[in-house]
Parts: sequence; structure tokens; C-alpha cells
Amino acid sequence: MKKKTTIHDISKALKINSSTVSRALNNSPRVSQKTKDLIQKKAVELGYQKNILASNLRTNKTNTIGIIVPRISRNFFSSVISGIEETAYRAGYNVVIGQSLESLEREQELVSTLLSNRVDGLLISVSMGTTNYNHLSNFKTNGGPIVFFDRPMTMPNIPSITIDDYEASYNATQHLIENGCKNIVHFSGFQKIELYKRRMQGYVAALTDNNIPVRPEYILESQLSEADGIELAKKVISLPKVDGIYSSNDTAAISAMQYFKKNGLKIPDDIAIVGFNNDSISAVIEPGLTTVNQPDVEMGIIASSLLIELIKKTIESPSEHSKTLGTELIIRQSSQKS
Amino acid sequence: MKKKTTIHDISKALKINSSTVSRALNNSPRVSQKTKDLIQKKAVELGYQKNILASNLRTNKTNTIGIIVPRISRNFFSSVISGIEETAYRAGYNVVIGQSLESLEREQELVSTLLSNRVDGLLISVSMGTTNYNHLSNFKTNGGPIVFFDRPMTMPNIPSITIDDYEASYNATQHLIENGCKNIVHFSGFQKIELYKRRMQGYVAALTDNNIPVRPEYILESQLSEADGIELAKKVISLPKVDGIYSSNDTAAISAMQYFKKNGLKIPDDIAIVGFNNDSISAVIEPGLTTVNQPDVEMGIIASSLLIELIKKTIESPSEHSKTLGTELIIRQSSQKS
Repeated sequence: MKKKTTIHDISKALKINSSTVSRALNNSPRVSQKTKDLIQKKAVELGYQKNILASNLRTNKTNTIGIIVPRISRNFFSSVISGIEETAYRAGYNVVIGQSLESLEREQELVSTLLSNRVDGLLISVSMGTTNYNHLSNFKTNGGPIVFFDRPMTMPNIPSITIDDYEASYNATQHLIENGCKNIVHFSGFQKIELYKRRMQGYVAALTDNNIPVRPEYILESQLSEADGIELAKKVISLPKVDGIYSSNDTAAISAMQYFKKNGLKIPDDIAIVGFNNDSISAVIEPGLTTVNQPDVEMGIIASSLLIELIKKTIESPSEHSKTLGTELIIRQSSQKS
Repeated sequence: MKKKTTIHDISKALKINSSTVSRALNNSPRVSQKTKDLIQKKAVELGYQKNILASNLRTNKTNTIGIIVPRISRNFFSSVISGIEETAYRAGYNVVIGQSLESLEREQELVSTLLSNRVDGLLISVSMGTTNYNHLSNFKTNGGPIVFFDRPMTMPNIPSITIDDYEASYNATQHLIENGCKNIVHFSGFQKIELYKRRMQGYVAALTDNNIPVRPEYILESQLSEADGIELAKKVISLPKVDGIYSSNDTAAISAMQYFKKNGLKIPDDIAIVGFNNDSISAVIEPGLTTVNQPDVEMGIIASSLLIELIKKTIESPSEHSKTLGTELIIRQSSQKS
């Protein structure tokens, strides 16, 4: 077997002293970027493998951040991740990602994998199936700090970066009412997820503030998938005189919209529609979908900056750093009745 | 500090003997799923943390697979990943994902992170910036087996699961010719990526087989991003008499299509368009985009099954297991001139 490359081999090859090499490989701010680049290039060339076991025992740091999201394929999550990656990378952290696919069991296994990998901290948006946080308490005790984004759990001393779902929903529903809608159906996610509950509450508040009766049969709960959108559209057609839909995501809104169009209904004149997320597809479909734009990249930047500060212990009282970000209603043709 | 939970604590709590507990926590096929579920639930409840360091030293296995892709936000990659996840999960492996964002440097850091995390094997689609494979050789020597998918490198003893890009491109171009196109522009990715080279070659072959001259100014290279699509559309308008476009991805095709529509050009009558990937957006845009459908989920299933066999050492001569998968042209309105 080939002898393993050591820091001293790199030091010799570059004629740079070995403590500088060690610092560079640990991404110390005391080494210039130029020197780091040089050393990292040589390390790769010589096949240097950081002895993470020994290194862990010494410093307990891996310069890696873990992210867990329900689904990487959702535009919203991939945009948050890109905000996280940019911030983390610039601060000298690598990022590994796992997807829970809305299952508590998978989320638990991922948390346990990231804990075993000794990531320095965790950014997580919990799954629809997450009903307890034992796995997260375990990570916090044995691993490192956690920051929630988008879908938090109520857990002591863990900050969360979220949007104002209530306000966003209120504005979306109000916009439909201002465009003449009186019988507005709400496509909701599962109510056990806090954010879907808040979105529903915003919808209800806008109706009641406008003296429009709230009908339980107009609140339709699902996973908001593409297939759900079609089922929801069928239900809407079977309901009397629906003239507007406010959907908790674009995926279900767009899929329903296509079903309505195929069945001869006119958007927005027969049914006006507002979605949530501003997925790129919402600008491409005809008519363009009115939707709530979330500051997704910004959410990633803020959440990861906070996590890095918690890892470095430069701030205290984590929960004081929770933040609620504002949203914007992007008005397109799908909601503007003539 | 709280005393760490051990296998014996779980064993006592459940009255199941500790070797069964150990087997269950290592996902052994010798323990029934029901028992595994029970034990895993209790382990989470008690805050059991597998001592991966000790466990590594003994078995050198983490039951984790690493995936590196250029960008998780691309439909194609997220679909491949979902195929990988399903297969891996059923075989008892967790999956961690990293994105290179088309940069060799980030890819190197990710490989090194996954190596440090002691993942059992690596599935990778290389970045556009990847010009050497030292980091991958290093992983193979010090880590575990590698399987390429979609974008391979030529490396000894590493199998790859790819599609027949040449044939797919040939058929796409032939389809445009059969629909009356004579002046077909090709939106190409960077030619240093093998698959874009093969797609270009398929386009060229279809033209020459039909005695249509190949014009270098009709082959436009870019990263095929949304922004690139607009720039490419502007270039196409400045070229004389273009009547068809074959694009190496849907992203650029759709963005160009929107630009053409805004500028009064009719799709397909003025310009027929064929894309590549069958992103969900291609069925939503009007007219629907004709595009090449790749067996993305299947690619993930095949690549991960192969990797798991290599990890388990149930097969030999890895490179004999490389596979080229077929594709299908999905014909929609964007290419059918009246």
C-alpha cells in the first residue's frame, strides 16, 4: 500500500512551513487566499487526505454545514440552498444536503447521518411528517447548533428564519376579493404544519374582514403535488359558483389551471387564481400566475450567516435572532378579471 | 454531562438481546423490518448516537452514499437523485448530496468532504469546469467505488451510466428536417463536456445525411442558462433565415421561445424548436415544447444499484457494467409546422 501523504510532504513540495500548510488546510483566516489556493491545489495533486478522525478528536470541527429540506426539486428550496451555499462557501464551509421527502423516519436517519459525519451545524426545514423533535434535540446535544428556516418547530433556544405567512395569505386573498371574487376556495397544505395553518388563518381573516362567510367545504387540504392539483380542480368544478382560488403553492395552482383550461373554463374570468412561491413556471404559463414571491435566496443567506455565528459562538441567546421576512404579491393575468 | 446511550440501554428497554439491536441499527437483512422499526424508534427516543468513529474503525462502513451533481435545481438532476434515493434507501443506505455549481474547485472540496465523512461510495456527474480527475482518483484509492452518471470522465475502471446523446440529437434534428426546416441552429453546451460534443455530432450527422450544409455560425455555445437563452434568441434573429432550433436543453429553448413570442415571431411556423430534458415546464409552455425525454429516474436506479454492488463487492470488473440508455423524442406543437 502507498504511503499516505502528510502535511509535511506538502510543506516540503512547496517550501512553505508545515504550520502554515496546516492552517491553510483548516481554512484559517490567518492564511491569505492566494496561499490557501496554492496549498489546496498541491494537497489534491499529492492525494492528501485530511485525517478527519484525528482532526475531529483535536478540534471537533469539520467546516461542513448540513442542510435538510423536504424536497430539493422544489424551486423554493433549491433557491434557499443557493443562498446558503454562497454564504457558507465564502465563510470557508462546505455544504452537504439531504432530503426528507416529507418523512419523519428519513429525516431522523439524515440527522443521525449528519451527526455521525460531525457536521458543525444544521439548517433544517422540517418534513410534513415531523411530529416530534427528539432527533433534533439529540443533534443539538451531541452535534452543534441548529437554525430552522421556512418550516420551524417550536423548540427552546433554536432560532428560525421564516416569512410572514399570515400577512402574505391575507394580501393574496384580499387581492382576489378586490378583483371581484366572492366564493374563494383555499388549497391548503396539511394543517399540522405551522406555516399552512398560518396561511389558512390569513385567508380566513381576509374573508371575515370583508364580511364574506367562511365555508369549511371551501378549504381543501392536500400535499399540494401536481397530481393533487388535478384532484382539487375536479372538486372545485363540483362545488357551486367558485370564482376564485388561493393556493398555498404554485405546483397545485398550475396543475389545476391546466385542468380548468382543458375543460373550457376561462382564467381569470371564470376562476381567478393566486399561487404561492413564484416558481419560474408561474411566469411561463398562460395566463401568467399571480403569486407570492418569497425572499428565498435572502432566507438562505440570513439562516446560514446566523448558523455560522452560532458555530463560532460569536453570539449568544440564539432564539433572540429569529427573523420574519416580508413577501411580495407578484400580480400577473391569472387574477385580474376584466 | 449526560451519560451516552448505548446499545445495551436500548436492549434493556425493549428486552431484545443486544446483538439483535446492533444488527438492526446496522440495517442487517437478518432482522425483520418490524423489529428494526421498533429498535430504531427506541434508539431515537433514547437519543442513541452510533459511535461512527469506533464503528468506522471496526467495519469501515457508514451505510451512506454521496452524490455530487452540478446543480440540484435542474429537473433532470433532481429526478436522477430521486431514483438514487429510492434504491439506496431500500438497500439501507442514506444519501448526502453536494452541488459543484459547475466549478472544479467546489467539486474537489465536496469530494474531500465526502471522503472525510467516509461515505461508502460516490455517484457523480462532473462539473463543466472539471478538467482533471485527481480528486476522483484520490477518492477511489482512499474512499470507495465511484459510478459516473450523465456526465462521465474517461477514467480507468470506473463505470458510467449515460444516455445515447448522439442518437438522441440525430433524431431530434432529423425530426426538424422532416418538418421542413432547412436552416437549423444548434444551442450547444460547452464542447469540453463530452455529452455536448456528442449532441453536436448527432446534429451534424443528421444535417450531412440530409445533404444540408453545416454552418459553424449556426452552432452557438453557452452554459444554456435562462439568461443565455435570451442572448441566443437575439443572435438567432440577427442570422439570416433561421427556421429551426435544436437546443441541448429545455431551459435555453424555453427562454428563447419566450423572447421570440414577445418579438412577434410565431412558433413553430416562423421558427420550429426542439429542446432536451423534458422538464415539466416544457409541457406547460404554449405551444408545448418538443423535447428529448431521458430515463432520468431509471438512470438513478441503475447507477445506484451498480454502486451498491461495487460497495458490497458482489461484482468485479466495474467498467464492464457501463450502460448507455435509450431516449425518446416527445413530439409537441413547437416543432410541427402547418
